This record gives sequence, structure tokens and C-alpha cells, in this order.
Amino acid sequence: MKKDKVLIIGAGLCGSLLAIKMAQKGYQVEVHEKLPDMRKHDLDAGRSINLALSDRGLRALRSADLEHEVLSQCIDMNGRMIHNVDGSTRMSNYSGRQGEKINSVSRPGLNKLLLDKAEHFPNVDIHFNSKCKAVDLVKPAAYFIDKGGDETEVGATVILGTDGAGSAVRRSMMARTPELLFNFSQSFLRSGYKELEIPPTASGEFKIEKNALHIWPRGKFMMIALPNLDGSFTVTMFHPFKGEGGFESLDTEEKLLDFFRTHYPDSLEHFPNLAEEYFKNPVGILGTIKCYPWQAFGKTLLLGDAAHAIVPFYGQGMNASLEDVRLLDEMLEKNRGDWSVTFNEFQEFRPENTNAIADLAVDNFYEMQDKVDDGDFIKKRNLEMLLEQTYEDYYSKYSLVTFQEDLPYSEAMRRGRAQDELLMKICSDPSLEDLPLERIYQQLKQI
Amino acid sequence: MKKDKVLIIGAGLCGSLLAIKMAQKGYQVEVHEKLPDMRKHDLDAGRSINLALSDRGLRALRSADLEHEVLSQCIDMNGRMIHNVDGSTRMSNYSGRQGEKINSVSRPGLNKLLLDKAEHFPNVDIHFNSKCKAVDLVKPAAYFIDKGGDETEVGATVILGTDGAGSAVRRSMMARTPELLFNFSQSFLRSGYKELEIPPTASGEFKIEKNALHIWPRGKFMMIALPNLDGSFTVTMFHPFKGEGGFESLDTEEKLLDFFRTHYPDSLEHFPNLAEEYFKNPVGILGTIKCYPWQAFGKTLLLGDAAHAIVPFYGQGMNASLEDVRLLDEMLEKNRGDWSVTFNEFQEFRPENTNAIADLAVDNFYEMQDKVDDGDFIKKRNLEMLLEQTYEDYYSKYSLVTFQEDLPYSEAMRRGRAQDELLMKICSDPSLEDLPLERIYQQLKQI
Repeated sequence: MKKDKVLIIGAGLCGSLLAIKMAQKGYQVEVHEKLPDMRKHDLDAGRSINLALSDRGLRALRSADLEHEVLSQCIDMNGRMIHNVDGSTRMSNYSGRQGEKINSVSRPGLNKLLLDKAEHFPNVDIHFNSKCKAVDLVKPAAYFIDKGGDETEVGATVILGTDGAGSAVRRSMMARTPELLFNFSQSFLRSGYKELEIPPTASGEFKIEKNALHIWPRGKFMMIALPNLDGSFTVTMFHPFKGEGGFESLDTEEKLLDFFRTHYPDSLEHFPNLAEEYFKNPVGILGTIKCYPWQAFGKTLLLGDAAHAIVPFYGQGMNASLEDVRLLDEMLEKNRGDWSVTFNEFQEFRPENTNAIADLAVDNFYEMQDKVDDGDFIKKRNLEMLLEQTYEDYYSKYSLVTFQEDLPYSEAMRRGRAQDELLMKICSDPSLEDLPLERIYQQLKQI
Repeated sequence: MKKDKVLIIGAGLCGSLLAIKMAQKGYQVEVHEKLPDMRKHDLDAGRSINLALSDRGLRALRSADLEHEVLSQCIDMNGRMIHNVDGSTRMSNYSGRQGEKINSVSRPGLNKLLLDKAEHFPNVDIHFNSKCKAVDLVKPAAYFIDKGGDETEVGATVILGTDGAGSAVRRSMMARTPELLFNFSQSFLRSGYKELEIPPTASGEFKIEKNALHIWPRGKFMMIALPNLDGSFTVTMFHPFKGEGGFESLDTEEKLLDFFRTHYPDSLEHFPNLAEEYFKNPVGILGTIKCYPWQAFGKTLLLGDAAHAIVPFYGQGMNASLEDVRLLDEMLEKNRGDWSVTFNEFQEFRPENTNAIADLAVDNFYEMQDKVDDGDFIKKRNLEMLLEQTYEDYYSKYSLVTFQEDLPYSEAMRRGRAQDELLMKICSDPSLEDLPLERIYQQLKQI
């Protein structure tokens, strides 16, 4: 076993996979998580219960030999099922190619699996209920407080901060702003989210199409639903806080039901306890966090949401965090375990890419709630399908981001946006209606 | 006297002028400043001793009947005096029109004058050495700690946070992030600054041209100098922290003098104590802070650097803060003293403009150190001068920002950038060399 000690702060999806990868490399790994062990306590009332796992995340899991086991717990989603106000639906596939789909996975389910795997290593030691108060970035050491209020100092060779959007590790970097020239931004959508549930039928069947991500797009607000293994769907309302359809204005059962009858009529029959759930579950906020640097003194590094929290509309938050782990692992391998060189390389390569997916995710918020039922947009999406069916090396923006696991996000954004611009021009110009597909393809190849 | 009590936190330039304006309106004004009274203590060792006061700041001072008194303590700066490496100099005026100039003013001098004026009002009560710890935004009330460590709670009708880039008021807003959806960003240049002094001659004369802002532009770094009333100049080195010309690398007297001999040779004779000052004075950081919202619950408002700290390269930091005071005062007048309506109007109008000057100031950092001695840039600047001399209603980007006191910054940025693009195109295209001035002017008027 190597003698380097790796202290990981935060045992969410990113931290748990990181513990596994670092253990596989033979380091001494110590993990501290502020919450109780989720395998023994139910911690997820009303908050992001399932997520879309796609190729980047799967690739990271594959590198830890976990891909197949995780996939066996997933439900395929082949496309977006658009629900119109009149109750009609339309399936919009994610790709024109067979087999390119995304996977609905239970967040706590995946997290528990990763924790089980991590704990299995003799060189991994996990502490729950251990809340990081601060990090001494120079030593390096971290200070934790347990449930009883007792404090401990934990030293390590390096500290990896995977403690999420509200990261204490990042806060310790921010506190050294002048010295680290710590750039930081947090920005919030003026919409929030609330989760609801569509339970299975009495016989345990899915009430709506199983293999899809359902969307009820309504311009200034929307609702989505992802399938769970037990036949239920986790539904998320994305609505503004104020104004039309705002959570603030839907403040009585009557107003709520009236609103659903008007805007989401086909969903109503699927909710046995709509009002009860609505008024019980909290409204979550949707924010983007960017920062730089990610490392300090060659000894501490931020990864995952701690470094780059994004909004969920590209289904890439978890995938980006898992990709962080794969990339760090590969760079560490290439640099023969030199932490300082690796941390620098990671922070020079990665933020450009996580900034790109952050921006794409905000773009997709507007696309999902407002564009997916627009005429030109549908034409463009159909054209993309046809192109993907016809040309093996053509990938739409969505596919570049979601299915091209080796392409950096920043390059996916650059090419994807340029493709979108060209295709939207073609689809909105009647004089270009008869442009041969091959000509379009050749133009796209110039990008 | 009105019964509303206005609590102002921070008695810098913005807070002091705000106290005067609120006192003139008849409010009860209480001011708390964390530092000792600068009229009794010397607080400014080595930090931004003089600033460029221009039309927006003057207009705000005029509204408090202070313009002439302040101007009598200023030194005119008619343009940039560019110092080349070979010792030659070239004056580049700020405007093609007579009388359009900026003014070098002592920051502590102006602050002291404003404090004297504010204190003169019977309805103004100023507390020094009173550091804000936090603000209860709902009550509203602020918590202060004095030199002896005693804490006080101060309630008020409204709280105005003018406590600068490190604002405690803003921190209290940020602490309510989910509720306020508090957007925030801080970003730093990879260059810092260090102040030096060119003293007057033995007979009290200016050693270099008095009525100019001097620049030694050197690509990746620069030095500037502004005149003081006593015949001295405050010189500021803007250099990267690391790399060529970096403060870190200039770490011995020999290296420092060698560097000055190579890059700033004509300045050397003017510094009697270069090395001593260089190694004594601190390196400051240069950052931009943006945030939104600026107000909370209709009871607390951020103004000045607390809301929008910017880098100093457009000479607009102080001017923007003083303009805040004028605008707030005018809006309050228009809204007949309705604080909540005024705060909302202020935060809806103003951030777009302070974001614009923030971005322009970063642009100017690169322009000043790298562009001012570039051939096409000089051609363009000469063309701008000629245009301003010929056409009364033409204003260059610099003039729009600096001399058009009624034009919102965002509009100055939009027009100024479009003008720059057109003029740079003309100046870099040999085939356009003989384009008649009138044609250029007509094209500019289309913007």
C-alpha cells in the first residue's frame, strides 16, 4: 500500500466513487461525510430522487468496474415524451441512432451502492455525521465536528473536497481570497422546483410510458417526470417563485387544482395526493456555482458540485462530477502520483469544460420549458434525427454532450452551438426547404 | 424634520456624501464607520491616495453644492502622457474639446471634506470605530462592535450599506441566499498594484508634467502617475503577481533597479527612495464584485463598492459611487420618500449600468498597458480627437463614459463599443485611408 493519505470530504456520488478509485490505486483513504449513513437513515424527503445517468457517468463507473451493476438498476429513457395541454403526446428521441439513450437512476440507490463498494476496501475508512468546519490549506488538515459537538483535526497528504454546492472546503479557499485570488460566482434562476410522485398502478405497473423522460412544457414553467424501478415516477415542477404559475401564487388547494386542470390536465388523474404532496414538499432553488482556482498549494482540490454546481436541465450534473473522478484518476496515473502537478493540470483543463456544461444547462432550461413544442424547433429536431440515422459521424448538440464521452464539454458546446445555428437557419427559411440532406451534412462537417 | 431614521454603514466617499444628501432631505441620519476618524489618524499608508474625479462625480457633488469647493482641491489632467522606453513622451488628450478634462483629487482629502460637511448637520450623528458585524434585514437593525469589544444594536427605518468591497451588509444578504436568490460574483485580475511616490523638487515644483495622467505602458505591465497638490505624484505599478515583471520576481533591490533601468528608465531619476518604498509598501489586489439583488425587504440597500466594486482603469469607481448617491436621491424625491418603491427602482435601473462600467474598466486595463502605444490605436485616437474637434455632438467611447454625465453607463458602453469597432476597422484598413471625415461622422451617427 502507498503511504500517501487521501482525505475525502463529502461522500455523495462524487466522493464515494473517488474513494473507490483512490482505494484501487492503493492510497490510504479517509472519508468524512456530514450526514448520517444514508444506508441506515432515510434522508431524501422531497429532494432530487432520481437522475439521468449517461455516457460520461457510465464511463467513469466503467473505470471502476461498476458500469454493469449500476445499469442493472437503471431504466432506459429513449427520448423526451412531450405532453401537450390537450393531452396528446409526442415522443422525441434523444438520438437518431439505436442504443443511444439515457438512464434513470435513483440517486440514493446509486450512492448506497458506491458506499458499499468503497467500504469494502480495507484501505478506506468512512466517518458519517462528521461535518467539516474548515480546512487548513497549507498543512493540509481539516477540522470536523461530530454529532456530539466534539472536534477533531485530520491531517492528510492531500484533501479532496467533494462536499457539494455548499462546500466547506471551498469556503476555506474563499476565506483566503487575496492570497488565492479566488474567483467565485453564484447565480440563481428565478424559478425553483418541487417534487411530486406518480405512484405505480395497483398492480405495480407504470401509469405512463416507462422508457421516456416526460415533459409538460408550458413556456414560463414546466413539469417533468422520470421513471423509478418500482413503477413510480418522480415528477418535478419547475416554476417561477413569483408571477404566473409561481409557487407563491399556488397557495391554496383550490388554486393548485385549478392550475393543474388548466395547464397539466392529463397528469391530474395520476396524482392520488397532489395537494398533500405539494404543500408538504419544499421548494428547492436552482443555482450555478463557478469558481477558480480549484486547488490550493498543491494539497487541496475541489471536485464535483463543490467546484461547479450546475442546474439540472442537461442531465449532466452527476455525469460531470463522475467524469471529474475519471479525469483526476487518469491524470494522476500519467503524472505518476505527483499530486501538485496533477492538481494544477486538472484545474487548468477542467473548469473551461464545466463552465461550458453550466451554460448549456441554463440554455436547456429555456429550451425545455419553452422551445420543445415550437414548430421550427420540432423541424430542426426531426432533421437532426434524420442526419443521425443517415450519417454515422454526425452528432447533434445533445448527442455531442450526452453520448460523446471523450469529447470535452467545451468542444461539444462550441460545435453544438454552431450546428444549432446552422440548422435553425435552415429550418426557419422556407427557401431552404428543399436543401438536400447531403448538402446540409457537408455544411455541418465544416464546423 | 422627518421622523424616518436612515442608518448608513460606512463613511467612505459614498457614505459621507449620502449622509449629506439624506441630511439635506431632513432625515435623521446615523452613520457608523469601522475605521477611526481619518481626520485625526493617518490611515492611508500606501493605498490609493489619489483618484480621478470626473463629470459624473462632479454632478453628484454639485447636487450637494460642493462642486466648486472640491474642484479647488483638484489638479486638472488634460490627457494621458505616454512615456516610451526610450524616454520620449507623447501627450494624448482625453478629448478633442476644450475644457473636457479629469481631475486628480486626494481620496482622504475629499473624504475629510465630506465628513466635515456631514458632521455640520445637526441631524447627522457619526460613530467611528464602530464595526458592523451583521444586519437583521427584516427588522431592520444592524449590530456593531466598538473598539472595546462592546456590541450595540441600532434600529432604523432603512439601512444603507456603503461599507465597501468587503461589505458586511452584503454578507448578511448573501447569508440569506436561498430566500433572496442572491447572485454574487467576485473576480480578480492576475495583476496587483503597488504605490510609490515621486516627490516634488527641492523648490516644491512638479518633476514631470503637472496636468496629465502619466502612463508607462509596457504590454504585460505598466506604471501610472497622478499629480498631488503638494507637487508630488502618486505612482502606481500595475504588475502581474507572477511571471515576467511579476512582483514575486522583483524580490531584491538589484533586480528591482535592473528592471526599472530596462523598462522605466526615464522614471528612475525621480525616485529618491525607490527600493525602500517598493519593499515597504504592500501589493494590493484588483477585483470586480457584482451582485443582485441590492435591496432586501424594502428596508436595506447596497450602494457604492458594496454593490459594485470595480477595477480602477476607467477612473470611474468613485464617480460611479457618487452617481449612485445622486440617483438614489432623485428617485427618492420622485417617489415622495417611499423607500421600498425607490429601492426597487434603484436596483432595477442601476446594476445594468454598474455592470457595464465594471466590464469597461477591465477592458481598459488591457488598453492602458498594451494598446496605447500601438500604431492603429494611436491613429484611431487621433481620428477621435479630430472628430470631437469638428463635430460638437460626437463623443468618443472615453468621452461618453467620462464627460456625458447624463448618459447611463450601459448606453455609453453600447455606443462606445460600436464606435470603436467602426473606427478600428477604418484605421486598420489601408483602402479606407482617404475616407472623408464627414462620411465617417455620418456612419458614426447611425450607431
